[in-house]
Amino acid sequence: MLSKNQLKNISKLSTKKNRQESGLFLAEGEKLVYELLDSGWKANKILSTVPIQKINHTRIDSNQMKKISHLASASKILGVFHIPKYDSNHQDHQGFSLVLDNVADPGNMGTIIRLCDWFGIRNLYCSFNSVDCFNPKVVQSTMGSIARVRCHYVDILTLIENCETPVYAATLDGNSYYNESFPTHGLLVMGSESHGISDTLLEKIDNRITIPSHNSGTGVESLNVAIASAILLGEIFRP
Amino acid sequence: MLSKNQLKNISKLSTKKNRQESGLFLAEGEKLVYELLDSGWKANKILSTVPIQKINHTRIDSNQMKKISHLASASKILGVFHIPKYDSNHQDHQGFSLVLDNVADPGNMGTIIRLCDWFGIRNLYCSFNSVDCFNPKVVQSTMGSIARVRCHYVDILTLIENCETPVYAATLDGNSYYNESFPTHGLLVMGSESHGISDTLLEKIDNRITIPSHNSGTGVESLNVAIASAILLGEIFRP
Repeated sequence: MLSKNQLKNISKLSTKKNRQESGLFLAEGEKLVYELLDSGWKANKILSTVPIQKINHTRIDSNQMKKISHLASASKILGVFHIPKYDSNHQDHQGFSLVLDNVADPGNMGTIIRLCDWFGIRNLYCSFNSVDCFNPKVVQSTMGSIARVRCHYVDILTLIENCETPVYAATLDGNSYYNESFPTHGLLVMGSESHGISDTLLEKIDNRITIPSHNSGTGVESLNVAIASAILLGEIFRP
Repeated sequence: MLSKNQLKNISKLSTKKNRQESGLFLAEGEKLVYELLDSGWKANKILSTVPIQKINHTRIDSNQMKKISHLASASKILGVFHIPKYDSNHQDHQGFSLVLDNVADPGNMGTIIRLCDWFGIRNLYCSFNSVDCFNPKVVQSTMGSIARVRCHYVDILTLIENCETPVYAATLDGNSYYNESFPTHGLLVMGSESHGISDTLLEKIDNRITIPSHNSGTGVESLNVAIASAILLGEIFRP
């Protein structure tokens, strides 16, 4: 069993401030918890309403689980994990990476992390004002991909200024992405749906690319940032 | 002002049954309502908490608006629109169209409608067990694209059996989509994330295509249906 105080401390991990202070985050559901454990992530506590074999855990009842769960229907297992510390120096990272400028929606962030995992992208760089990847909604919507994609919160401007590989920005006024031949190493910068990429960043990026619209100017004005990332990464990772 | 009974009838449009019986659906927010009106959609009622120029509307107060709104923060304008009647015969439709088998998530459906709009797809075919495109959550997440993309609820098996153009199915075991050269006219069938495309349908489709994963078998098992549609449509609409 857990004390009221312990439960309260776990509930508090819903806010970024408390996650940063404690260095802990929440992951719910069997699949996600096991995937994190299998990938070597260090658990602070595993809580369960049912007995689990071979895993050190604390039994709680379903009412306690409901109190700490962020899901519409609480799952049987919840893990409190340590937030890992990564080497965030881009010069140490190989291949093509994605950069997010001010992407605030947890669902989009989760979908993008999952997408990175699909394409084997191991490093995702996020501006400080992007949503925290250890936000419970983000963690859940990655469907386990958070275990394999490293999210680095860095100063994007410095990252781009120091980058020795080509940097691409997805904008509405660039060259058609169909005409680009992408290198093996590089960065693709995506902006938020509402604001796009900030002007300060755009000034530093030479390669602007666009997904041409076929709606002859009378239709939809932009694509969701996760959708646009998917289309561009499909092309970037063309064998 | 509206009577209690009128408000109640508008609230009822949150369910598919009541939308089908009344032939009406809801659209909220200035941008969406104007886009539907501009595209010639017939309004049954426009309700507003503020005066609007040149549009026949009924003033309501913000408490009434809150009662009928489906948004976290109610907007100033809500339109009750007539559900249009389309010609759903695929033989009459040109170009490449998307087919959804059992796609249940409103957010995914909305994103896919928006994506269709971007690529100029005018007809989207959905199985009867897919989420209703006039569900308020779907309507809102299309960001206005519902005004331009016709969603047809049809028997998908019959559609495919009678289709005279090539039909593609997105599966996890098909040929790499990078190796396909797609025709100008055709159908792309996408299944639900949890169940994929039903076996009965798959048996009728010769061309199975896959988005190759780069995570060497240890990572994410599937992509979100909207994300996978985006990647494939990017290639299908390559100029």
